[in-house]
Amino acid sequence: MTTTEMAATQASEPTRNGVDTATLFATLDAVKQAPEAAQFQFRAHNQWVSGTHNRTTITGYFGVGEERTHERTFVFDADHPAVLVSQDHGPTPTEFVLHALASCLTAGLATIAAARRVKLTEVRSTVTGDIDLNGILGLNPDVRNGYQQITVRFTIKGDAPAETLRELVEQSRARSAVYDIITNQVPVTIEVNTP
Amino acid sequence: MTTTEMAATQASEPTRNGVDTATLFATLDAVKQAPEAAQFQFRAHNQWVSGTHNRTTITGYFGVGEERTHERTFVFDADHPAVLVSQDHGPTPTEFVLHALASCLTAGLATIAAARRVKLTEVRSTVTGDIDLNGILGLNPDVRNGYQQITVRFTIKGDAPAETLRELVEQSRARSAVYDIITNQVPVTIEVNTP
Repeated sequence: MTTTEMAATQASEPTRNGVDTATLFATLDAVKQAPEAAQFQFRAHNQWVSGTHNRTTITGYFGVGEERTHERTFVFDADHPAVLVSQDHGPTPTEFVLHALASCLTAGLATIAAARRVKLTEVRSTVTGDIDLNGILGLNPDVRNGYQQITVRFTIKGDAPAETLRELVEQSRARSAVYDIITNQVPVTIEVNTP
Repeated sequence: MTTTEMAATQASEPTRNGVDTATLFATLDAVKQAPEAAQFQFRAHNQWVSGTHNRTTITGYFGVGEERTHERTFVFDADHPAVLVSQDHGPTPTEFVLHALASCLTAGLATIAAARRVKLTEVRSTVTGDIDLNGILGLNPDVRNGYQQITVRFTIKGDAPAETLRELVEQSRARSAVYDIITNQVPVTIEVNTP
């Protein structure tokens, strides 16, 4: 979306696809004036339960210049299934990565469609990740630990030609935080405190 | 863990850290004999709700040669908060990435500790991810879309010296699927069906 597109669209904007586009464009303008407002820090707090079962709490984050909290505290369990010698109290960590990718691309798609005046009626996706556990099991040094490939299959309906709907997905991909995290490299630091 | 360590440990193994180590070692042996059993495909099914709010269902996967389903169906909402022009019906997609990393490293830690006969009494972690939203907002082409850095801070207690506990974390990192996904590159294919 270019600045010209935004200016042209901003004049008389209703909510579209559940997106308050007037506020969206106003927010973009505000961030343009004060780019430091866009510095965010997200956080997750995890506590081990037993075996591969553990629980994450998500509540606070930093953004737009101050500490904030979500409307409510979100809690998620993760585990491995019985076939991996565990008890299936939650999805595997790797399945949460697929969820994160689907939700990021879909949120972006709905927002970009609203900004471009496309009304969506349905967006579904299935994300598959192929992984060879010989990697994490330490049985084959030539096999990576993570997914070998991930495939996202969207089904989309809306009031625009198929080509336009595909362009919306492409623009969402080009602006997706999670797509970038997965397809590129993020530096990760691990610190250990042993009180 | 080397084969020698496993053989030495396998003889008289109780459950430790909630990990059934005898079954774990037996599983490792079985996969060594039939490496194709370790080919897994995980899946997530996402449906758009409204705006940036969408919902993922996780139920089926492929592994150890056949289609399988989790003990129950897991459902997760994702959204953006009000400060990002949304309604905070769930964590952001990027927060789920932090959860995935914490849960993967923690599951690995508990398993490796059990295999090495270390009894853990507490494992907590906080994962922070720094992100400049000027990237995904399209306001600065020099800013990446995803996290600029992620930091994991563990607090660990157990019946081993601090140095050993740190080595367990290091081994978990070295065998973590999600750490690999985030710190290296995974190829992602996106297909769009517009019926």
